[in-house]
Amino acid sequence: MTLEQWRARVDEIDEAIVRSLNERAECAIAIGRIKNQQHVALYQPDRERDVIERARALTTTIGGPLGPAAIARLFERIIDEARGLEIARVSEPGSDGNTGNAG
Amino acid sequence: MTLEQWRARVDEIDEAIVRSLNERAECAIAIGRIKNQQHVALYQPDRERDVIERARALTTTIGGPLGPAAIARLFERIIDEARGLEIARVSEPGSDGNTGNAG
Repeated sequence: MTLEQWRARVDEIDEAIVRSLNERAECAIAIGRIKNQQHVALYQPDRERDVIERARALTTTIGGPLGPAAIARLFERIIDEARGLEIARVSEPGSDGNTGNAG
Repeated sequence: MTLEQWRARVDEIDEAIVRSLNERAECAIAIGRIKNQQHVALYQPDRERDVIERARALTTTIGGPLGPAAIARLFERIIDEARGLEIARVSEPGSDGNTGNAG
């Protein structure tokens, strides 16, 4: 394959990644609303550790080429962006309007 | 949907993201080898800007919920991890063994 063909493949993958990241973000917002309605903390470190551990295990099973440390760094950033959305969106229309956090 | 159902959906999406990130990394390694064989610079800021601009435009078209700034931050990290692999792998077996960089 030529450089341009590889880059076209990267562009396709990037489109899939952008779509997956947005679908994930929709889930995070929905989860934030449920947690808010149930008055449980938005930040749940055990769940975040599970998410990162699952991603690390999967990349190890796949055999990379991204190693577990690289995947963990990327998922920390993905979770961080999701958390920002959960906090920003939890009190928007569609939630119960309760911005309290059981923290 | 319950919290657990949303989380199960997140886990499915995360699996797809890990697979896409690794497939993207394979492409980046292949691109690094071609650039090395052609004695062109591994770091090509114009291409990186194009990748980020494409991702920003797509998330705007999709309507988020991740905004263009969030997507740009995530793709900067994805590109950074890919660049690390390109540099590390370019001179491994399968390349032409030339570690030079045309800068």
